[in-house]
Amino acid sequence: MKSAEMLGERKIIDIILNQLERMPSMPIPFGDDVSAVDLGNGKLAVIKTDMLVGKTDVPPQMTLWQAARKAVVMNISDLAAKGARPIALLVSLGLPRHLTEKDVKEIANGLNHGAREYDAYILGGDTNEASDLVISCSAFGIADKNSLMLRSCAKAGDIVAVTGAFGKTAAGLRILLGHMKPPKRFRKKLVDSVLMPRARLVEGLALAQTSAVTASIDSSDGLAWSLHELARASKVGFLIDGLPIAEEVANIAKLRAVDLVELCLYGGEEYELLVTIKPALFEKVSKKVSLIKIGYVTARRKLVLKMHGKTVPIEPRGWEHFKTTLLKS
Amino acid sequence: MKSAEMLGERKIIDIILNQLERMPSMPIPFGDDVSAVDLGNGKLAVIKTDMLVGKTDVPPQMTLWQAARKAVVMNISDLAAKGARPIALLVSLGLPRHLTEKDVKEIANGLNHGAREYDAYILGGDTNEASDLVISCSAFGIADKNSLMLRSCAKAGDIVAVTGAFGKTAAGLRILLGHMKPPKRFRKKLVDSVLMPRARLVEGLALAQTSAVTASIDSSDGLAWSLHELARASKVGFLIDGLPIAEEVANIAKLRAVDLVELCLYGGEEYELLVTIKPALFEKVSKKVSLIKIGYVTARRKLVLKMHGKTVPIEPRGWEHFKTTLLKS
Repeated sequence: MKSAEMLGERKIIDIILNQLERMPSMPIPFGDDVSAVDLGNGKLAVIKTDMLVGKTDVPPQMTLWQAARKAVVMNISDLAAKGARPIALLVSLGLPRHLTEKDVKEIANGLNHGAREYDAYILGGDTNEASDLVISCSAFGIADKNSLMLRSCAKAGDIVAVTGAFGKTAAGLRILLGHMKPPKRFRKKLVDSVLMPRARLVEGLALAQTSAVTASIDSSDGLAWSLHELARASKVGFLIDGLPIAEEVANIAKLRAVDLVELCLYGGEEYELLVTIKPALFEKVSKKVSLIKIGYVTARRKLVLKMHGKTVPIEPRGWEHFKTTLLKS
Repeated sequence: MKSAEMLGERKIIDIILNQLERMPSMPIPFGDDVSAVDLGNGKLAVIKTDMLVGKTDVPPQMTLWQAARKAVVMNISDLAAKGARPIALLVSLGLPRHLTEKDVKEIANGLNHGAREYDAYILGGDTNEASDLVISCSAFGIADKNSLMLRSCAKAGDIVAVTGAFGKTAAGLRILLGHMKPPKRFRKKLVDSVLMPRARLVEGLALAQTSAVTASIDSSDGLAWSLHELARASKVGFLIDGLPIAEEVANIAKLRAVDLVELCLYGGEEYELLVTIKPALFEKVSKKVSLIKIGYVTARRKLVLKMHGKTVPIEPRGWEHFKTTLLKS
């Protein structure tokens, strides 16, 4: 019998989904970024839970304040990707016995700060003893049923775009783990992308209002993985011809042997939105929301990267619990 | 600086609450059984999160299926206490690496079963690697604003009642831990009260419709602790003159030296509802919902138990994370 370690997170999720009865008329299908319940009057209650575990999700240099804030941001980002406005969060804490009063204050303050950055509030929670630090947030928000951005409606010919450049977090994590030593002037921005992630809520809400977005996902599992998820949900492929490499990462690459494609596609823990947009409306949308065009949706269900005249497949890999761990990466 | 272990759960919660900004016009105050957001039209979105941790919340004889089901029931019970109808749950899992495919299936099936028992569905979740088994459920439900049962409106003269007898879980846990050996004929019922808890949802929803309930709480932290919480929120006291001792526990007491008051008041992990009811409506309500009258609300802010002609204080103690552990209890 295979262990969780051998199965990996994706297979575990499949096993779990197979055991669950489906709610009739789910407004958002299983496996999308969030879940939802129809409230009537064109409104959806949007709910999301995402757990941060100290051992696997928190690099040694991240403070407890930052970890708690990140636990909130992770959840807000998923609501943002659907165009849902976060209102409230609940927090279940698993706290190791040795944490001090100061540590607990720092965690609570980080949670509050994270929520207030996005105009939401922490409304309640639960505290427990645990061996690991566990911060499990649940976000509640409201979305308009008509402007909801699912993963599943990308069409061939749509433009693929992202809300920001990629590679900073992967580089930042390598720096924090001592695997990369960049010139000092780049260090802070790269490290900050890991320690102080930001959810693209303003962008997500604005995009939802345009009616131009056909599919949307947050990129927290990495750009490559997120592309594969969108492709799977929409039954399409992607031709990516403009890899959105962050300037700082490109600059390092000029000085060091750095695999830009690896950092940009397969990093993870980046919280940009990846969207597909009706081509006729792209220009109009770009005036409202700053977007980087990275390619096209294709009817052919392959995911390929075109770069320097060569075409290579985009592999379905990224961060995966049980298979990847912070310490090994 | 005090550690989490020295602070205890209640103090930790106070520290956290002190760091959180309050959402304006919260329909349910901090520290009640659930949190809520006003949806307009007299409806509230009710949300609750409660985490089950293997190390502290799962006795060795409890199967993974039972543990997962219990993680759901814990949350449903809190909604029941407020008169809110559960609709959906999310689940964040922390799974140790050694769990097998069969274990994961069992957990998922227990979650689904727990939700379906109460007409709710598991809508989504998150899977992570963790040292402990962690099952963090978040429940989403809807309540009528007008029939919501808070902790804070008990009035002197109201009747105090519970939806069932107490002591079974405390006795059952002692049996499971080998600290009590009852005659065989009592064993199953007592042990089952630990392994297969039930939330009083039907009762909670019916009670909310009567407009007779002035305050309500679920008794998962123990009867004594729940009485103290209600007393604190409503600024009242209690005279308990009819300790609701479960028949099986009373029967054991006839054969063995068993501290009935200890088992009944200070056990915890029991999921009865504890309510206060307008005296003029008590008879009418009892016809709809099976209730055990246990005493009265008093203006004097003391909590006392009257038994065999003697009056003793009810102490503010019960299950507390960081201070109590399964293995020590």
